[in-house]
Amino acid sequence: MNQTIKTNRDMLGRVDTLSLQEALLFLQQNLPPCTTRKVKVSRDEALGRICSEDIFSPENLPPYPRSTMDGYAVRAKDTFGASEKLPAYLEISGEVIMGQFPTEGPLPGTCYSIATGGILPPDTDSVIMLEHTVAIDGSMIEVTQPVATGVNIINVGEDIKQNEILLAAGHLIRPQEIGLLSGVGLGTIEVFRRVRVGIISTGDEIVSPDQQPPPGKIRDMNSVSIAAQVRGLNARPAFYGIATDDEESLTNMIREAKAANDIVLVSGSSSVGVRDLGEKVIEKMGSPGILLHGVSIKPGKPVIIARADDTMIFGLPGHPVSAAVAFELFVRPTIQHISGITADNLPQYRTVKARLMRNLNSASGRTDFVRIQLKITPEREPEAYPILGKSGALSTMVKAHGFIEIAEKLQGLKEGALVEVRLFD
Amino acid sequence: MNQTIKTNRDMLGRVDTLSLQEALLFLQQNLPPCTTRKVKVSRDEALGRICSEDIFSPENLPPYPRSTMDGYAVRAKDTFGASEKLPAYLEISGEVIMGQFPTEGPLPGTCYSIATGGILPPDTDSVIMLEHTVAIDGSMIEVTQPVATGVNIINVGEDIKQNEILLAAGHLIRPQEIGLLSGVGLGTIEVFRRVRVGIISTGDEIVSPDQQPPPGKIRDMNSVSIAAQVRGLNARPAFYGIATDDEESLTNMIREAKAANDIVLVSGSSSVGVRDLGEKVIEKMGSPGILLHGVSIKPGKPVIIARADDTMIFGLPGHPVSAAVAFELFVRPTIQHISGITADNLPQYRTVKARLMRNLNSASGRTDFVRIQLKITPEREPEAYPILGKSGALSTMVKAHGFIEIAEKLQGLKEGALVEVRLFD
Repeated sequence: MNQTIKTNRDMLGRVDTLSLQEALLFLQQNLPPCTTRKVKVSRDEALGRICSEDIFSPENLPPYPRSTMDGYAVRAKDTFGASEKLPAYLEISGEVIMGQFPTEGPLPGTCYSIATGGILPPDTDSVIMLEHTVAIDGSMIEVTQPVATGVNIINVGEDIKQNEILLAAGHLIRPQEIGLLSGVGLGTIEVFRRVRVGIISTGDEIVSPDQQPPPGKIRDMNSVSIAAQVRGLNARPAFYGIATDDEESLTNMIREAKAANDIVLVSGSSSVGVRDLGEKVIEKMGSPGILLHGVSIKPGKPVIIARADDTMIFGLPGHPVSAAVAFELFVRPTIQHISGITADNLPQYRTVKARLMRNLNSASGRTDFVRIQLKITPEREPEAYPILGKSGALSTMVKAHGFIEIAEKLQGLKEGALVEVRLFD
Repeated sequence: MNQTIKTNRDMLGRVDTLSLQEALLFLQQNLPPCTTRKVKVSRDEALGRICSEDIFSPENLPPYPRSTMDGYAVRAKDTFGASEKLPAYLEISGEVIMGQFPTEGPLPGTCYSIATGGILPPDTDSVIMLEHTVAIDGSMIEVTQPVATGVNIINVGEDIKQNEILLAAGHLIRPQEIGLLSGVGLGTIEVFRRVRVGIISTGDEIVSPDQQPPPGKIRDMNSVSIAAQVRGLNARPAFYGIATDDEESLTNMIREAKAANDIVLVSGSSSVGVRDLGEKVIEKMGSPGILLHGVSIKPGKPVIIARADDTMIFGLPGHPVSAAVAFELFVRPTIQHISGITADNLPQYRTVKARLMRNLNSASGRTDFVRIQLKITPEREPEAYPILGKSGALSTMVKAHGFIEIAEKLQGLKEGALVEVRLFD
């Protein structure tokens, strides 16, 4: 995968489109740098954010050696040689009280009772599990097997050591990270700013979804669902309005969005006029300009991918299903990259294996994405029913649980095939 | 899977624990009703929420028949019989302007040029694709193949019909649902209230994470990471405080949390005293009381699952890794159930296939969950490295990408085995 894809500026006609794989590789090679903008957030707001710097632990966790079992804190050597035949007998000379720091420990040959989480008292080095002892009476235990030094305890700093890296720059903050930050008392941390995504709708026929459309117009659907896709990825959408089929209006709107965002999405009217206009305007926004226009996928083929200086600009197709697919394939990994997360290349979506319930034809030389409705069947794989409605009908996406990919080299899939369905978020 | 699991009130000793499968089935059989509490939200706030009632479309979408292609709006019959040898010739007698409602249509034998999304003019019934025509000059096209009635158009209400169910009660609102709501102009909808989860920490040794712990105490980690897990599932956590090892304090706190929440999570101190106290107090909270105490899993074994009237109460183990596993296995499906979502039984988490990099032993008769760190390798499955640190060390969860399950009947897994890693959110 190390070949370099040349820019297809010379292929801007709608025939020589790139394959999906070429397009993804080309996108990857032309991504702008990750964000370096930082912001402080409280620990509770940090879920889903990305560390922007290495965070060092201000303390040892745990700060004291603690028992990981209910049992008795002992000097291990007092149990050496203990066996069923020749048990060791230890007097219970005290008790570790939860939440209190034990200042004294047991004398040699004696032990303290201790609960899970209790602090190991001075002079002891291990804990015998309750289950490995027999209580003689309230004051004495019989130990039938030896315990080694350090067993059943968690040592000072064994979870995390003072000044050790707690979270590295680029690390995603999940619930466990928030827990660990609590454990060492860190209440605010520095994270990368959310990726900012400016969204523009185009088309003389489009009005705001909150408006009653006059005859001949329809409400904007794409920019609204795209904004929701952006939000679902922990990025920050901002809507810049509906551009008319007018060069100056579109230029000004994209320029304004570019100035304040990492990514600009131009939700396309599919009409020829606006499409050509979009291409022309996007090309002028900065260097290197349009990277590709058109990918051999269905739906989503007319996507435009451009980089204008450090801003990525995407022209998304006008049909809502096409726009959603192009977003999933190209915009999602771009947001992920810019976010500053350390790339783990793990799937960012759920999948499920299912049984295809009808034959599907597909043109070879093109990657097809087919919406799938799943039905759960007892004791077998779910059944995958293709939804073959028009890509202009968003209700087909509402009926669908996810989609499957028919690879470029295939001419279709047979009924009964086991397919991997990529679930929508 | 239709057998009924008897309550194991009589198995409350720590020996006769249920298997994971029995425990899950038993939980499922004893879940309280789904929530019926409703709230109105704006369309933009609706992402991730669940419809609480059937939503009917107030209008047809699209409101007019629209072209799905760039081309020419025609009467289909004017193209019947057209072929390469004997093309039909149609005069371009007008143009559909985007955003304008065409009040007149082409005369018989003529056509209007139309762009994708344009409204079909009166008296036309289909669209010929640009690519299937040859322009003779600016005023005439040659048509070399016939088009059937209704082709390349999306009809009135073909996406969604007026008064048809747009979203059914129980439907999850994803980006496409938000797009469709925009399309028909719905700005607010009714959804189920978020599932409310009250969280209580217990243990004399625990202080708030924002406090400098005095000697002998440590900061609360579990309730903070559990709250983040809850938030990640679109539910609403509320923290009720840290209960000391005192029956009255714990009783009052659980009672207060129960009154205001669908689920109460008692994040357990693992100490014997508090553990027994938790069991005693939870049992008194309502009917039927404790359903099970202890499941044959590692980590997470000492989990308590109870139902007190219509509130589920979980006693989660004190070790942070155990608490996280018990949450994933039992609390997550409970939140899902109560949320009111139509059960689709699809996986709610991401998975990835990986190659296990070392042998793992496991006791037969117990389901083991092993934290996994993944390394991406070029051209092969990712490598799965088990993290074998103590379940008291939360840093092991920070290093992990997910976990694998070693089924109850297995005694371990061999190095090189292909495993399915369940990724953390």
